[in-house]
Amino acid sequence: MMQPADIARTLAAIRERTPLIHNITNSVVTNFTANVLLALGASPAMVDGADEVQELVLRCDALVINLGTMSADRAAAIRLAVGAAASAATPWVLDPVAVGVLGYRTRLAHDLLSDAPAAIRGNASEILSLTGEDAPGLQAGGHGVDARASSETAREAARLLAAETGAIVAVTGATDYVTDGVRTLAIANGHPMMTRVTGMGCSATAIVGACLAVQADRLTGTAHALAIIGVAGEIAAARSRGPGSLAMEFLDALHALDEEGLAARLLVEEL
Amino acid sequence: MMQPADIARTLAAIRERTPLIHNITNSVVTNFTANVLLALGASPAMVDGADEVQELVLRCDALVINLGTMSADRAAAIRLAVGAAASAATPWVLDPVAVGVLGYRTRLAHDLLSDAPAAIRGNASEILSLTGEDAPGLQAGGHGVDARASSETAREAARLLAAETGAIVAVTGATDYVTDGVRTLAIANGHPMMTRVTGMGCSATAIVGACLAVQADRLTGTAHALAIIGVAGEIAAARSRGPGSLAMEFLDALHALDEEGLAARLLVEEL
Amino acid sequence: MMQPADIARTLAAIRERTPLIHNITNSVVTNFTANVLLALGASPAMVDGADEVQELVLRCDALVINLGTMSADRAAAIRLAVGAAASAATPWVLDPVAVGVLGYRTRLAHDLLSDAPAAIRGNASEILSLTGEDAPGLQAGGHGVDARASSETAREAARLLAAETGAIVAVTGATDYVTDGVRTLAIANGHPMMTRVTGMGCSATAIVGACLAVQADRLTGTAHALAIIGVAGEIAAARSRGPGSLAMEFLDALHALDEEGLAARLLVEEL
Repeated sequence: MMQPADIARTLAAIRERTPLIHNITNSVVTNFTANVLLALGASPAMVDGADEVQELVLRCDALVINLGTMSADRAAAIRLAVGAAASAATPWVLDPVAVGVLGYRTRLAHDLLSDAPAAIRGNASEILSLTGEDAPGLQAGGHGVDARASSETAREAARLLAAETGAIVAVTGATDYVTDGVRTLAIANGHPMMTRVTGMGCSATAIVGACLAVQADRLTGTAHALAIIGVAGEIAAARSRGPGSLAMEFLDALHALDEEGLAARLLVEEL
Repeated sequence: MMQPADIARTLAAIRERTPLIHNITNSVVTNFTANVLLALGASPAMVDGADEVQELVLRCDALVINLGTMSADRAAAIRLAVGAAASAATPWVLDPVAVGVLGYRTRLAHDLLSDAPAAIRGNASEILSLTGEDAPGLQAGGHGVDARASSETAREAARLLAAETGAIVAVTGATDYVTDGVRTLAIANGHPMMTRVTGMGCSATAIVGACLAVQADRLTGTAHALAIIGVAGEIAAARSRGPGSLAMEFLDALHALDEEGLAARLLVEEL
Repeated sequence: MMQPADIARTLAAIRERTPLIHNITNSVVTNFTANVLLALGASPAMVDGADEVQELVLRCDALVINLGTMSADRAAAIRLAVGAAASAATPWVLDPVAVGVLGYRTRLAHDLLSDAPAAIRGNASEILSLTGEDAPGLQAGGHGVDARASSETAREAARLLAAETGAIVAVTGATDYVTDGVRTLAIANGHPMMTRVTGMGCSATAIVGACLAVQADRLTGTAHALAIIGVAGEIAAARSRGPGSLAMEFLDALHALDEEGLAARLLVEEL
């Protein structure tokens, strides 16, 4: 079972090696994602132009692909980046933002599944959509990127998606489930106020990228990432009185996170 | 006359229904606008690609069009979005950022007036420009998106613009004026430090979108939005010592805003 | 030698004249850069579309060109903007983000050197690359935009670059060096935590733009800018417990910065 000391070792490795994490992400969260990676101890890059993306992927330690604010130009850059990551055997992580809601990016996400993502992180609706199931939250609420469906509803879909694609699959919500298709870990950290700050899910995916850059066991690395964001979010929520102070405190908590803080709060079990 | 309890009911409706507010906005304020809508209790979406924008507009409860950082691609996406909103009878709100200063977006804004915006929110220079008048602030200062002209100078222009277009028109400044062409409300809340945080005007427009998603009386909904941002800004300013803490406290204040806080500060009159 | 009272006069001129600083910058830092300029007392504009950029440059008091998140469209807009600045004799400042790492923007940066930038601000790797030298940090670490090489390693390169181009050249790091090719000033303000907030370097360049808009002596103006950001960063760091609170406190400190605060901390010498 995952121990606070193991997570602290992953954190220490990030802070010591400062892995270069290349993000092609949506325009809403570029700044926050870069600040999250800097607070964690990693080194972010956010290059997304087709003329530059391959060159940077060949230098980075992990690639994070986020499908928010999609366009044909961005899709082309993503395909170049994912191809370069494959050629360099660099791990890449997929965040299928609003897949299942918007047809264009849903088709792109299904295409990208054949390019061997190291990990996939999404909410229940997004993970259900990737397995071809109807996402209940989408039909009921007609909403965009919010996770309306409980993460539990996508637990089995996550296991199947992991088995089919070889990716570690994380479905996040009040409880996060992380699976390699055989083993499944449940992490119950985090705070409801985190859903009132834009880019928290995108940041979780970026932290997965940072952990996979220093941790070869992908199930372990992905679970460490979700424990890190969940515990840092709880520490921040305890110091906040709203979503504005939470975002600020979250960066401070990530920067200061240590084994003691993890041990006091970590809620993980293997199912 | 508008009462604190009425505004609190609009706030409660937003928090309960979490309307999906679709924003096509400039790259400077996407993150802050999304966080403002989340702090308010709404659900933001910021999709701006031509391949996706219509599909999302058909799901949203209100559309907000902000003309900052304009390009031909963005203009095309805006036209698609506004067309989709019209076909679905979804209210859309126009923020004519820096219209009157830059020719390209000024022409676009004039075109969009014929697409029946539910509301328009701008500073005095922008509203004057939409009625074809010379904007004094522009000529005097040569400035970009700042409101140099007092909102009072555009009060009559706002009334005419509302009468001509059928939109509710809000001209914001030290005092905000909201008019349907017949009635005019004046709201004197807010704090000068708010002008030292980028995207406060854009956020006001996004909050108008959220209020119109739950309030069918458009004059009332637009006035409620300006009261909400003004009072939350005052509460935040009282807790801040500069523009950095103001931005953070503003999100916390929006999240916590209630009838009591509104009653203690609301300054509104019908002219 | 540069005195606190001189820097305070530059600050007062910015706050009184609110110069319009036009930034074409990367999508990661648009919001933070605009907030930094507002906190300083300047008026930011971030227009980057080819259809609008020339018109705005002709109105602005200084232009800041940042090469992050580059594309062919953005490169075209930058060339239009720099051309307009030249025709209007408006000072423009170059931030060669990650030049030396990525071929496309490195070629663009070398081209732009012939368009007479008023100032150039970069880290050691970037400045070394502009003089055609191999940047040690790049080869050693394979990193992107981080400054791995000490600023001292690029001191002589900065002097040569200034002499060749006529630009004031600033190479920033633990100590910042500012040179016109003959005189060199060293500023030792700042705090290591500033490297854990994205966009601090980009903000330094934007502040250089604001200072050059009010200070005709370009060596003095550039040095004042680096003293301002360094001292404000130190004040903010003393009030922070991590990078999240540092970013917020930095904006508050910029807004409140005065001669007394400068006098208590300024560390400058002429070499």
